[in-house]
Amino acid sequence: MELQKMAVALVACLCLLVFGATTSQAGHPAHPDPKLINPLRIMPEASSGDSVSVNNCLSWRLTVETNNKRNWNGVPEICGNYVAHYMTGKQYGYDCDAVVDIAIEYVKSLPIPRDGRSIWIFDIDDTALSNLPFFSRPDVFFGVKTDNAELEAEFYEFILTAEVPVLEATLRLYQAVVEAGIKAIFLTGSSERSADARDKNLKAVGYHTWEKLILKPDSVNTTVQVFKSQVRNRLVVQGYRIEGNIGDQWADIVGSNVGRRTFKLPNPMYYGYY
Amino acid sequence: MELQKMAVALVACLCLLVFGATTSQAGHPAHPDPKLINPLRIMPEASSGDSVSVNNCLSWRLTVETNNKRNWNGVPEICGNYVAHYMTGKQYGYDCDAVVDIAIEYVKSLPIPRDGRSIWIFDIDDTALSNLPFFSRPDVFFGVKTDNAELEAEFYEFILTAEVPVLEATLRLYQAVVEAGIKAIFLTGSSERSADARDKNLKAVGYHTWEKLILKPDSVNTTVQVFKSQVRNRLVVQGYRIEGNIGDQWADIVGSNVGRRTFKLPNPMYYGYY
Repeated sequence: MELQKMAVALVACLCLLVFGATTSQAGHPAHPDPKLINPLRIMPEASSGDSVSVNNCLSWRLTVETNNKRNWNGVPEICGNYVAHYMTGKQYGYDCDAVVDIAIEYVKSLPIPRDGRSIWIFDIDDTALSNLPFFSRPDVFFGVKTDNAELEAEFYEFILTAEVPVLEATLRLYQAVVEAGIKAIFLTGSSERSADARDKNLKAVGYHTWEKLILKPDSVNTTVQVFKSQVRNRLVVQGYRIEGNIGDQWADIVGSNVGRRTFKLPNPMYYGYY
Repeated sequence: MELQKMAVALVACLCLLVFGATTSQAGHPAHPDPKLINPLRIMPEASSGDSVSVNNCLSWRLTVETNNKRNWNGVPEICGNYVAHYMTGKQYGYDCDAVVDIAIEYVKSLPIPRDGRSIWIFDIDDTALSNLPFFSRPDVFFGVKTDNAELEAEFYEFILTAEVPVLEATLRLYQAVVEAGIKAIFLTGSSERSADARDKNLKAVGYHTWEKLILKPDSVNTTVQVFKSQVRNRLVVQGYRIEGNIGDQWADIVGSNVGRRTFKLPNPMYYGYY
């Protein structure tokens, strides 16, 4: 009798495993018990201010990751639970690993001259380090609620703790890059006032050596994309060869002198303005 | 008793629906009964020649769509069923619609001068028209098996029938583009010998008017990316303004004079070489 029940459940499970990729993606996002989303207890309330209706959160994420959707401000409320599951489940890690596997294969294929001019550009936030502890706060809810000056100040405090955890996949790429004789450049749009914290934080999690750590001076009023392009232009003028460039935002890898090859890590939680 | 069984199955189903997005994406791809994949009866046998191991087909597709994975030749065999489900299920259509919704919002936001110089560039294969009838052939299996001169010839014959179906989302964008006073340009890497068939095919499915239909001359030996860049450069020199550019391949939307804004439709079945 118990065996019979299990058999029926098993058949149902198998049926869903087989078609899960299609059927679970086809409908509207499921709204599970919020208590299931550890460590969150509060459901999102804020609106996304999105002018295109969001019917399907898998489609929404794909348009974000492929740079079709731009200048978006906040995860649509309806996709909050979907993004929460994605970021706290295994798929986010798998996706980061898949990007880094391709990047490492590329690094190993490169002929690196021994002139010390080969560099690799690493973004910091949600590339070298993971801001997930901040974004999983109930009052941020994985990017559903971010349009808030107070939260911005608290994010800055979070950075200053210098205890932001590593993004494991990127550390793996860093190790392959250094081993190949390519120098690491950390390039971030975060304020140069956080330089000490970032320096300490990067070293603490395993990024032990680098050629430059470049932060955005408070006097620079351009967008992150323009700032990063200008920095890269300067590096190229100085004689460096940008063998690769990795970031979680398109603003990190478009513009001028983007590098011999670019890599885009996933990030469905926020949009880095061009 | 029957009710009890159903209840157990229902609980198992609900459990999987709630966590489906995470769990069904986390493991290795399922291998369903091939008979379930209509209209296919034969399982894929060919190897993908992929040098990076593929552990997760969702990750694989994301790396493809985000231009992290490049120059790939054939869908990895292990992801054949996953791609088959995606392309024949509802998600592919949802994803195309999501891209086109963003593009139409952009079109409506544009100030279009009445000088007749505004153009929009449409790719044809798997953008204006859908090659799915060909790619769902058992001996092609959604791109698992494509590295074959015979298949290439048969694909050309398929094109020449001029009965390739429309990709509905793109037709919707085309209508918005024409309505906004932007002229359509169809730009394809397929041979100019197929010009009559393409002309007839496009008109038959609803693309009634265009400024130019540009095919690749057989004398051009460059890659599709270079060919399309050169054509766009020429259009700009002629005084056209490329307001938008849509394709299913990155080769369609990178290079020079890509347009004021680019849109990438999904296509996990093949890679258009740069």
